[in-house]
Amino acid sequence: MISTEWIGYGAAVLTTLSFVPQVWQIWTTRHTKDISLRMYILFTGGVSLWLLYGLLLGSWPIIVANCVTLVLAGMVLALKLRHG
Amino acid sequence: MISTEWIGYGAAVLTTLSFVPQVWQIWTTRHTKDISLRMYILFTGGVSLWLLYGLLLGSWPIIVANCVTLVLAGMVLALKLRHG
Repeated sequence: MISTEWIGYGAAVLTTLSFVPQVWQIWTTRHTKDISLRMYILFTGGVSLWLLYGLLLGSWPIIVANCVTLVLAGMVLALKLRHG
Repeated sequence: MISTEWIGYGAAVLTTLSFVPQVWQIWTTRHTKDISLRMYILFTGGVSLWLLYGLLLGSWPIIVANCVTLVLAGMVLALKLRHG
């Protein structure tokens, strides 16, 4: 039987790693026109709150996932602001 | 004092609603070239696991957030597959 914690870690790995190909694509093409700036402003704000929620709940999958997601989504936001 | 649950709901609202402007932008422009297909394949898979995690944990903010996010990120994925 797979424990709840390991399902959380699996979820964390997938949603976190999902931003890597997006960062890589922008890094190589420098094209961000089709990416919504509003999405990444709201998303990075939301991920910051998820991190706080994880800390208060003491849930390691939520904490680890949202730390890394914050860095990666923050990179997409920064690249969007740079390339427009 | 704001309760942990309400911080979770705030996080849920922000990360969930963040996909609305992205769906809207694709819907109006029909342009998805700069959006990474791999990102949305991994992301929708991950959100499905987060939903399962929330159900097992009995965490309503995680359940509600990931139900709606799954629909919205699924729409981005479907539009990306359609418009390329």
